[in-house]
Amino acid sequence: MKTKLRVAAVQMSSSLEKAKNLAEAERLVKQAAKNGAELIVLPELFNLYGDLGRAATEAELLASYTVQLLTELATQQGIYLVGGSFAEVGPEDGRAYNTSLTIDPTGTVIAFYRKLHLFNVDLGEALRVCESDNLAPGSEIVTAQPPIGNLGIGICYDLRFPELFREQARRGMEILCLPAAFTLRTGRDHWELLVRARAVENQCYVIAANQVGEHAPNSWSYGHSMIVDPWGRVLTQAGGDNVEVIYADLTHEVLSDVRRKLPALHNRIL
Amino acid sequence: MKTKLRVAAVQMSSSLEKAKNLAEAERLVKQAAKNGAELIVLPELFNLYGDLGRAATEAELLASYTVQLLTELATQQGIYLVGGSFAEVGPEDGRAYNTSLTIDPTGTVIAFYRKLHLFNVDLGEALRVCESDNLAPGSEIVTAQPPIGNLGIGICYDLRFPELFREQARRGMEILCLPAAFTLRTGRDHWELLVRARAVENQCYVIAANQVGEHAPNSWSYGHSMIVDPWGRVLTQAGGDNVEVIYADLTHEVLSDVRRKLPALHNRIL
Repeated sequence: MKTKLRVAAVQMSSSLEKAKNLAEAERLVKQAAKNGAELIVLPELFNLYGDLGRAATEAELLASYTVQLLTELATQQGIYLVGGSFAEVGPEDGRAYNTSLTIDPTGTVIAFYRKLHLFNVDLGEALRVCESDNLAPGSEIVTAQPPIGNLGIGICYDLRFPELFREQARRGMEILCLPAAFTLRTGRDHWELLVRARAVENQCYVIAANQVGEHAPNSWSYGHSMIVDPWGRVLTQAGGDNVEVIYADLTHEVLSDVRRKLPALHNRIL
Repeated sequence: MKTKLRVAAVQMSSSLEKAKNLAEAERLVKQAAKNGAELIVLPELFNLYGDLGRAATEAELLASYTVQLLTELATQQGIYLVGGSFAEVGPEDGRAYNTSLTIDPTGTVIAFYRKLHLFNVDLGEALRVCESDNLAPGSEIVTAQPPIGNLGIGICYDLRFPELFREQARRGMEILCLPAAFTLRTGRDHWELLVRARAVENQCYVIAANQVGEHAPNSWSYGHSMIVDPWGRVLTQAGGDNVEVIYADLTHEVLSDVRRKLPALHNRIL
């Protein structure tokens, strides 16, 4: 990775109003770029959130407005943009995927990731979600190696599956980018724990951009977007109520220092 | 696993005096059994700790006194005993291994595990350890399925390698037993985080029995032995200063409830 890299996680409170969400994403990404962020991560389903059935119904082709906006933002602002995710209509099968595009400052899509693990949970009254009723799972682990650093991409529920990020680390990734809409209920108990654990065990930076607040009736996200260093130190963390952008300066020195002193990645044998 | 299982983690402060350490282990295991523990976990290198070179020099054959004591304790107390670990002379090659035996109430060794990941770290003045200078690594993932529950075994530094416990979970393990001598320096930053993460991601109970205090000059352990449930809740935790035994009642109900509500183990695809 670069000697020093300023990154940002955008915490949004997306709703069912797509135009409003897109305008908000545009405003926040421009703000982050203005503040010097070179790599910016948006949250999961940033352009429409609160009803997975609705997201699937309004799923877009890659040629759609959402992707155009992401591309314009990356090129006009001169940034690397992990475009959270959006419901994408797969041109090959017409199914809806939970898709994350990472776009470089030339407008090239350098990572095209479809969420592998779909969120199916039934905590009773408190929380019931069955993402696989509406969305289809991806099938590929995705990484990218732009000049700023080696990036691994995961989305929300993926966080519970260490084997995904482990494989990304094995491929040499240095910065794990995690767009999320981690729920209020599960987030309280597991968000910070799992984000920090992925950083520590893989000795990577993690940029975790979460949704926050109420999106629709019975749809709440936990917020607390975080940027964590390879020793598991929380460099910055958002609150649990507000839309905001958080920043951190990542350094190659910290990454290499941690990996040299405690060579756990090198000591893998399984 | 059993409907209800009382377990204990024994936190010791082992030294270079083997006879004293063995007497202490005997006292604490008997105490735990008296208090109703059916499964008891000792810490790593419980019979001699503070100098890995010395441990290797005094490594024992399986027919030695340490194993005799563990077997007597398991049979006389009618318990399942995860005998922490001790330096074992491999009869096949004469090398010293960091070996954990789990013994059932009939005296049968139901799990024979040699530590896979050897601890090599250089944090400068604060901490320097090169376990592989003195000990040889094992080569097998080890699990056991006694009637009380399905047990996975790992030792200390193994905790940093999620793939080990992931494979144990894939094989149906329910209770992960972790004898450790996690250092004071790294324990402060990573012990609780990683113990809880292994529990949450694998939806298993974790019984983590650590060494504590000063063992020899420049050899300090973190203590804070823990028993964690499959949702990551800390059921009980020892302090960072004292020798003590901690207890918890594990239930099949909690295990199955967590796995049913959030079927992450079922949702694995990689």
